[in-house]
Amino acid sequence: MSEPAPRGDRLAVLVAEAELDVLLVGDLVRPGDSGPDAMANVRWLTGFTGTSGFAVVGEGRREFVTDFRYTERARSDVSGDFERTTLEGRLVAELAGRLSGRVGFDEDSTSVSSLRKLQEAMPDGASLIPATGLVEKLRRIKDAKEIETIAEATRLADEVFEWLADRGMAGRTEREVAEAAQARMRELGSEPSFPAIVGAGPNGALPHSEPGERDIAAGELVVVDMGAKVDGYCSDGTRTWATGEVSGEEREVYELVRAAQQASLEAIRAGVSGAEADRVSRDPIADAGRGDLYGHGLGHGVGLEVHEAPRLGKTSDDVLEAGDVVTVEPGVYVPGSFGVRIEDLVVVESDGARNLSTTSKELRIIG
Amino acid sequence: MSEPAPRGDRLAVLVAEAELDVLLVGDLVRPGDSGPDAMANVRWLTGFTGTSGFAVVGEGRREFVTDFRYTERARSDVSGDFERTTLEGRLVAELAGRLSGRVGFDEDSTSVSSLRKLQEAMPDGASLIPATGLVEKLRRIKDAKEIETIAEATRLADEVFEWLADRGMAGRTEREVAEAAQARMRELGSEPSFPAIVGAGPNGALPHSEPGERDIAAGELVVVDMGAKVDGYCSDGTRTWATGEVSGEEREVYELVRAAQQASLEAIRAGVSGAEADRVSRDPIADAGRGDLYGHGLGHGVGLEVHEAPRLGKTSDDVLEAGDVVTVEPGVYVPGSFGVRIEDLVVVESDGARNLSTTSKELRIIG
Repeated sequence: MSEPAPRGDRLAVLVAEAELDVLLVGDLVRPGDSGPDAMANVRWLTGFTGTSGFAVVGEGRREFVTDFRYTERARSDVSGDFERTTLEGRLVAELAGRLSGRVGFDEDSTSVSSLRKLQEAMPDGASLIPATGLVEKLRRIKDAKEIETIAEATRLADEVFEWLADRGMAGRTEREVAEAAQARMRELGSEPSFPAIVGAGPNGALPHSEPGERDIAAGELVVVDMGAKVDGYCSDGTRTWATGEVSGEEREVYELVRAAQQASLEAIRAGVSGAEADRVSRDPIADAGRGDLYGHGLGHGVGLEVHEAPRLGKTSDDVLEAGDVVTVEPGVYVPGSFGVRIEDLVVVESDGARNLSTTSKELRIIG
Repeated sequence: MSEPAPRGDRLAVLVAEAELDVLLVGDLVRPGDSGPDAMANVRWLTGFTGTSGFAVVGEGRREFVTDFRYTERARSDVSGDFERTTLEGRLVAELAGRLSGRVGFDEDSTSVSSLRKLQEAMPDGASLIPATGLVEKLRRIKDAKEIETIAEATRLADEVFEWLADRGMAGRTEREVAEAAQARMRELGSEPSFPAIVGAGPNGALPHSEPGERDIAAGELVVVDMGAKVDGYCSDGTRTWATGEVSGEEREVYELVRAAQQASLEAIRAGVSGAEADRVSRDPIADAGRGDLYGHGLGHGVGLEVHEAPRLGKTSDDVLEAGDVVTVEPGVYVPGSFGVRIEDLVVVESDGARNLSTTSKELRIIG
């Protein structure tokens, strides 16, 4: 297998195709003080792990700029094909001064005030053109090293799942369980890729409820949705466990979701659409008369952000490609009663889906 | 002392003064998935602690909207003077449909794409007018309960400072010390208000360096800058400690910074300008021939965000008011050698500054 071209080169091709002279990559919402999600494009493109930096990419141009706080880090992090510069003074104005020609910018990560400041400080003849999602398009397909890193984050989260199962949950609050899982992740040298969700009994029927102060009872279903982060890359996985014997309906729904998930896992391969992958999980749930209780899509891409392209759902236009890393997470939520969601993280390959998640999907009674 | 008017009422006065019919308050950068800083205005105004919500405020209008995930939380969190509504469908478009007249929006917290979506979905006759900083202006002055909460976060961080001092630092890496401090904060039921900074020896001369893998040696100065968070409110404080005997120059700079900080603490009261408060700390450092090594402002406001109004620095136009909570943090950074910063958090009162920080400022040798 040949090495892929450098990321800057691949982006430069898209920049030319979009009829731009350069693309400005970086966070223009809180420039100089960006969170990890907002820095994901810069990190992917250049390797930079700090919170203040921009890249400018076009034909023959690979430039990385930061401020004085990160000069040293830029030296150690940033790929050698980027020229590195430390800007002094106001970051956005200084950046604007370096632009010329048709400059693409990301509408989603540029605030109205930053756009105004760019326009005011740009040289005559330069123009700003909305160009959203070019880096995201490349980020979607993961290389071998990225996949190994996400696999490592998944292994780590699986270890925390086992640790939780060993300890049981009944008698503790959802919040205590969620915090224990996050603390354990940190002990293992990782950190949560998002705040862990622990929803017991009726709270499990609220797909995005936050863990609360309610004690987890014996004989409830508990939805646990969590992920770890390794070198900036996220994992994302969900298991639903029982704290003692549960009702026939709960078992039936559990097995329904499990079968629906298995069907999608078997259907996923490069070339299958996100809508088709979703349908494969949705049909058996609808056939069982519970279609209305599966109120979200099948899954989403995962990488430097926990939600990224592609999208797997009824209205998705995406077609899966080899190297996509996506969640497969159908769920059924019985309002006021209980919920079941089962989520694995898989790598899309030409002939199938390689499952990174290893935690058992038997209905476990964990006490 | 009379109760202050409800926050919505005070904001409505500013909205009318700005010749707006309503102000749209909330995060239009990642609508539906906002971080805590981006939600600070909504939280302050309505009490809502979730990650997806907007307020619309004008004469006779106090409306809070969220999506289905947060209906329950809105019921428990949001102040009774706001009408609560759950939106279905696309959040930004639905929100736009509820607007009319001259609608103020915050340029800093609205992305270019969200502005476009608002414009496309707004009824005829509605217009969007930039109006930035109205809520921030009110948030700046803290009430008694907010001050007590920030004081509690400060006490908690002070407890972690003592815990760190008891354990010593020499022989551990900066990163280990920073992570231990953060873990201890979590054990105490809090969380870090920002990633802790631990800079030893020459790294202490980089005011914002991130803690690294270098072992902290004996006989170094170590700058530790950290804060806790309680009920959303931040603390922020810095101490510089010695891991054994340090040089005469290091002691001299330490006492210089300490005296400069003390001078500012004594000068601060309502009516003093942010520029004057800064000058009082800068003059003695300049007189000692080290003015060039104090490369940042004296301080900043702290509240729901760790950096908010007012600003204390050479070019600040702010005048301190009773109820401001601000950091007082001069520093001297000797490149390649060491740094000293001492930072307290104070409440501005009519007749002085009430210091919330209690950790000793003697030069401590902590091993």
